[in-house]
Amino acid sequence: MWNEEIECMSREDIFEFQLKKLQKTVKRAFDKIPFYTEKYTNANIFPEDIETLKDIEKLPFLTKDDLRACYPFGMFAVDKKEIIEVHSSSGTTGKPVVSGYTQKDIDSWGEIIARGLTMMGLDADDIIQNTHGYGLFTGGFGVHYGAHKLGATIVPISTGQTRRQVEIMKDFGTTCLIFTPSYGIYLGEVAKEEGVDFDKLRLKAIGFGAEMWTGEMRDRIEKTFNTKAYNIYGLTELMGPGVGIECSAQNGLHIAEDFFYPEVIDPETGITLPEDHKGELVLTNLEREGMPVIRFRTKDLTKLHYDTCDCGRTFVRMERITGRSDDMIKVKGVAVFPSQIEKALLKVSDIEPHYQIIVTRPDIMDEIEIKVEASESLFSDDIKEMMGVKEKIAGYIQNEIGITVKVSLVAPKSIPRNTKGKIQRVIDKRNLN
Amino acid sequence: MWNEEIECMSREDIFEFQLKKLQKTVKRAFDKIPFYTEKYTNANIFPEDIETLKDIEKLPFLTKDDLRACYPFGMFAVDKKEIIEVHSSSGTTGKPVVSGYTQKDIDSWGEIIARGLTMMGLDADDIIQNTHGYGLFTGGFGVHYGAHKLGATIVPISTGQTRRQVEIMKDFGTTCLIFTPSYGIYLGEVAKEEGVDFDKLRLKAIGFGAEMWTGEMRDRIEKTFNTKAYNIYGLTELMGPGVGIECSAQNGLHIAEDFFYPEVIDPETGITLPEDHKGELVLTNLEREGMPVIRFRTKDLTKLHYDTCDCGRTFVRMERITGRSDDMIKVKGVAVFPSQIEKALLKVSDIEPHYQIIVTRPDIMDEIEIKVEASESLFSDDIKEMMGVKEKIAGYIQNEIGITVKVSLVAPKSIPRNTKGKIQRVIDKRNLN
Ligand SMILES: [Zn+2]
Ligand SMILES: [Zn+2]
Repeated sequence: MWNEEIECMSREDIFEFQLKKLQKTVKRAFDKIPFYTEKYTNANIFPEDIETLKDIEKLPFLTKDDLRACYPFGMFAVDKKEIIEVHSSSGTTGKPVVSGYTQKDIDSWGEIIARGLTMMGLDADDIIQNTHGYGLFTGGFGVHYGAHKLGATIVPISTGQTRRQVEIMKDFGTTCLIFTPSYGIYLGEVAKEEGVDFDKLRLKAIGFGAEMWTGEMRDRIEKTFNTKAYNIYGLTELMGPGVGIECSAQNGLHIAEDFFYPEVIDPETGITLPEDHKGELVLTNLEREGMPVIRFRTKDLTKLHYDTCDCGRTFVRMERITGRSDDMIKVKGVAVFPSQIEKALLKVSDIEPHYQIIVTRPDIMDEIEIKVEASESLFSDDIKEMMGVKEKIAGYIQNEIGITVKVSLVAPKSIPRNTKGKIQRVIDKRNLN
Repeated sequence: MWNEEIECMSREDIFEFQLKKLQKTVKRAFDKIPFYTEKYTNANIFPEDIETLKDIEKLPFLTKDDLRACYPFGMFAVDKKEIIEVHSSSGTTGKPVVSGYTQKDIDSWGEIIARGLTMMGLDADDIIQNTHGYGLFTGGFGVHYGAHKLGATIVPISTGQTRRQVEIMKDFGTTCLIFTPSYGIYLGEVAKEEGVDFDKLRLKAIGFGAEMWTGEMRDRIEKTFNTKAYNIYGLTELMGPGVGIECSAQNGLHIAEDFFYPEVIDPETGITLPEDHKGELVLTNLEREGMPVIRFRTKDLTKLHYDTCDCGRTFVRMERITGRSDDMIKVKGVAVFPSQIEKALLKVSDIEPHYQIIVTRPDIMDEIEIKVEASESLFSDDIKEMMGVKEKIAGYIQNEIGITVKVSLVAPKSIPRNTKGKIQRVIDKRNLN
């Protein structure tokens, strides 16, 4: 372990130091950032009201829109001179969100990731090929700083040049690959094409993240590269990749609880949910100097588990993200997530994993239709074959979400894509009726 | 100044500590790297033969091909475990060149660049928008580490997203832009299109490099952005950007002589040239742990000046790179560089800066023809107009290189481009006759 004393602390000790850090953070934010001063004053809540960890629930949430409203530097708690690095999330809708770091924040980031890379079984001997992009987005930098801290060798190749990536994997004796699941799957395909003998590679671990994934995707990655793949979770607003990292048990991501306080809330009511309940992850920076973010609604859906992990660590584990609270739809009173549909579709061959969920309310009852693109071969097959596949899909989906759906098999590439090639997953027509 | 004691040392002191560092470096390389052991033994030269700085001339040169032959890690002087970062130059022809860094090497890189940014008038208050790409190539990382060391704010935006770059320049109050001259000119054009009021920007300095440039390009950049632009020189083999950086005098780049020992040689004979003579720059690492590079032929053409700079610094100044030794052609006994032709062409309007130099020897005398693409409007103009432009071009070129040339004005886009859109600058047909 990187730091056993911290990573295996008793839960009481963790909660105790979290309370102290939280109190300090709230006080600093209230004193230094006019946005918080105003927001908390309006809500009639003050730093001295935080007497227990539970009292955090009295504080209003922070949303992406709040951060946008503070663009560019309105959320900084220190003089601009103390900020040594700035990142930003993409600004496709409205102003981007800016994230600022002091030297101490960058050091913490490195520390958190070094600890995580150690959980993945890596040390100073390892060669880490980092295919995440480096830029305004935090992608590549987290692992970069963490590898430096660990003393491993970082190969900052960033995304693209896939054939060269394969060559370097072989020639450098890369022991750890960092990628997004989709790029990893592509990299694996190219490596196969190039005739790579995966048994001869020196891979010991894969770190993957920055995208939603399914168990099937991890299986495929682990089988292809013949090594274990560990999930890395994070977001630019709080720091970047590394908020949570999986250990050898591969049974959820340990959140770095000395730096982040996690809550799970009901995305509709905002009420904090108990352990083991699925809801929206809310995160609070506990140590951040440059830009303390308090009760940030991540929109990511997960569950938290506080029991001691098989690896011996006591830091809370979050399950992999299974959806976004803004993607969730309630149909016939049941919460449905696109990820559930996706999971069911992955079990069926002869179809492409391109789909759209259409919700209507013809009368008083909700109806849900799943449009799925058939494969070229299925689509040119006879109708009986197609009926069989449709029934299979409907069965798997019902099994997954608990309600009956109508399935439509449509021509390959017939579901409209936006300019970025993405399909609008959910079309909810109920408000229009 | 970042470190006046070092930067303003007397020349004797500089040469004295350089000799000590050189002796140590040669000894380490000879002891630790089989490539050097063999090469120096074959040349019958041994570490103890380096008794004066001048003795460096006894050591054989190191070429890009030598480095390629050591691919991937054959040039490392330390255990792989000590290497924390690896970069690489592109491998378009043959194997790429790998460059390895220990923690101390990365710290040195940051130190060198922090000193350089200080020469450019920057400090911890500044906001540096770094448009260099981050990846295997060293581009973005040098300024990144230097900015951290300086305590300035780095905005690691990397190349592209030009409209967003413009927005950030305005919104963040960027005080320093880092770019290649060609991207800088493009960025300036986009900023103008977006109606940016350059007087309202907070720019204090521009750092540009990684490409050859002309005085006219710098003028254009400085006029557009309404601020001073400083040249940054470096190469991945030796470290990356920062080997030389310009000071406020803008009268050559100060080489970080505590880390690099520069020589200028005649590219044909390999003989070391005295101060103020133009030739090929040869560089030696004086402090590098991970991969000491000794007498590397850069192929870059420059002159060195050892007189104390107007800024008070004593570190040697190199002139901006005016060509590559592998681009140089000798015509009628005179050395001609494409950059000289380019300089002449930039003085003429009505033509595109796309040209090709064709050298022939019909009998015993060399002949040189410059093919230049006319602008669309000139090309559709009457012949008399074109004759006038041709004469003008021939005059400027003769003025620049001292010999008579034949100029051919050809149709726009008629000179063949390779798959990367580049024109082969020099076609030497003399060996074929
Ligand atoms: Zn664990
Ligand atoms: Zn100077």
